[in-house]
Amino acid sequence: MSIQTSDVFEAMREDLDLVRERVSQSAHIDFPIVSGMVQDIVQAGGKKLRPLLLLLAGKAFTYDRPRHVTAAAGVELLHTASLVHDDSIDRAAIRRGQPTLNSQLNTGSVILIGDFLFAQSAILAAATDNVRVVSIFASTLGDICDGQLREMLSAHILSDNRDDYLKRIYGKTASLFAGAAEMGAVIGGATDREIAQLRGFGTDLGMAFQIVDDVLDLRETASELGKPAGNDLRQGVATLPAMIYAQSLPADSAERETLERIVVGDEIDDAVIDSVVGRIRESGALEAATAVADDYVASAGDRLDVVRDDGIRSHLRDLLAITVARST
Amino acid sequence: MSIQTSDVFEAMREDLDLVRERVSQSAHIDFPIVSGMVQDIVQAGGKKLRPLLLLLAGKAFTYDRPRHVTAAAGVELLHTASLVHDDSIDRAAIRRGQPTLNSQLNTGSVILIGDFLFAQSAILAAATDNVRVVSIFASTLGDICDGQLREMLSAHILSDNRDDYLKRIYGKTASLFAGAAEMGAVIGGATDREIAQLRGFGTDLGMAFQIVDDVLDLRETASELGKPAGNDLRQGVATLPAMIYAQSLPADSAERETLERIVVGDEIDDAVIDSVVGRIRESGALEAATAVADDYVASAGDRLDVVRDDGIRSHLRDLLAITVARST
Repeated sequence: MSIQTSDVFEAMREDLDLVRERVSQSAHIDFPIVSGMVQDIVQAGGKKLRPLLLLLAGKAFTYDRPRHVTAAAGVELLHTASLVHDDSIDRAAIRRGQPTLNSQLNTGSVILIGDFLFAQSAILAAATDNVRVVSIFASTLGDICDGQLREMLSAHILSDNRDDYLKRIYGKTASLFAGAAEMGAVIGGATDREIAQLRGFGTDLGMAFQIVDDVLDLRETASELGKPAGNDLRQGVATLPAMIYAQSLPADSAERETLERIVVGDEIDDAVIDSVVGRIRESGALEAATAVADDYVASAGDRLDVVRDDGIRSHLRDLLAITVARST
Repeated sequence: MSIQTSDVFEAMREDLDLVRERVSQSAHIDFPIVSGMVQDIVQAGGKKLRPLLLLLAGKAFTYDRPRHVTAAAGVELLHTASLVHDDSIDRAAIRRGQPTLNSQLNTGSVILIGDFLFAQSAILAAATDNVRVVSIFASTLGDICDGQLREMLSAHILSDNRDDYLKRIYGKTASLFAGAAEMGAVIGGATDREIAQLRGFGTDLGMAFQIVDDVLDLRETASELGKPAGNDLRQGVATLPAMIYAQSLPADSAERETLERIVVGDEIDDAVIDSVVGRIRESGALEAATAVADDYVASAGDRLDVVRDDGIRSHLRDLLAITVARST
């Protein structure tokens, strides 16, 4: 798949810079040391896919730069707040090439800084002065928490229930893409049908994004990922490829039993996990999971008929391509 | 001070029951075990002072029961979410007579459940369909986080800076009372001046509430408090009475040095802390701090001139009296 990633980022650079500036202002904290750490995190890397989606969804209809930029900054801060709490929960040490807050501060401070960033994102959502935007924002936050709770409370069971996996990734990932696209369209004064299509585009894109992420976690080498391959399995989280692989195994096989022990956390030997990762790669499960992601990409593409401007539709297609081809 | 606490609770019982029901519905989680724990917490004790204040501020103008109840439930859930994270940060074991979530679950789950409750409170705020209410809600959440960060990052220094203490307690406590009263008046269609007076009433009440709390922490015995007397000091937090006591000590005295070591966490001997608590009690600092609380109570009372209904004004005065006389 050939991608002109530069086009969409180049076209939107000025607006994305405004978003970055707004995020940075909102994340200002009165305490110098902590403030520095928080600024490092909000300014570090990340492709800003969610704000970009929101801005493009706005440009597809009537662009209101101040409001769209405000909402996009809110979405980015909500994402950052959620990463701060996530990293604390997972005890991650590195994020976006920076040391995580929890590698530098005690848990209490990290909880409070995450809460502070949630608060700032809510203030930005309210500053759009649009009650529908605020309502999308609040329900998105609810969906994200639901997805994360599902991952924590039910992922550590090797289940064949794909529905549960889809609910989980909808909550933890797709809901924010869905909300970003919806907010952009709402602020842009789109009709209800147009808003629904844009929300659907964001949902499909987000589902594809997470499935690709889960495939990469098993496919890439440790040096490409910057963390061990099969990191999800090591955390006891069974993702789609692992579920597809499990379905291919007889119920009483030694392979299935090993996989079950890994997911519940009873098997933590790196060599055993490495060999299971190898077997998943050889089983065709990664290709089967990628095909599911491709279906979401196709569905997302179909929803773009409501976007009449050729340039914007093309940017949205680029964004979709970037999402699924992220690390090939 | 004689208080007819029963009057205001009795008069508002039906509406408070609606608030409890709404809170309970909103806090529903799909996972049975966790759901039970969360219900225990949201249904447990607590006088529901914040929702009560919001409802009364509404009744002072034009009462819109569905919207006022929704906003009051949002305020109560926001308070609960903040307690869940607080208890995790402080590693508290008991709250409202119930085991805290963090005494039953790992830190990650507690962070997520707190976030989930924040999300549900934001959804309720958005459900009022009033963008000004949402905006108050968001900035209140910001103020709460600011106060908690201040407590974590700057309380463990024995400072004579009363301003810092007042900012801290405004954020962590008074801001939510202020926001509750303001939301009630806004939904009630009050004028800007009336809204400002009600917000001021909430602020003053909240400041008095926290100062009284800080006095009680040093005055009551362990059995009255359900935790050791001087618990704030044991956590390294210098409250108003400790600051007033410190000001009375010569800069190079042994007493001042001991107090400083307690606040920075270098002195954790229970007998030493007990003796400092005793000296604070004898110093007159508790009475001096109570006088500061009384000033806030007087200021709050003066703001009630904008409430024309005698019954509601009298209920608001009762609420004020309950706040400061809570455990005498």
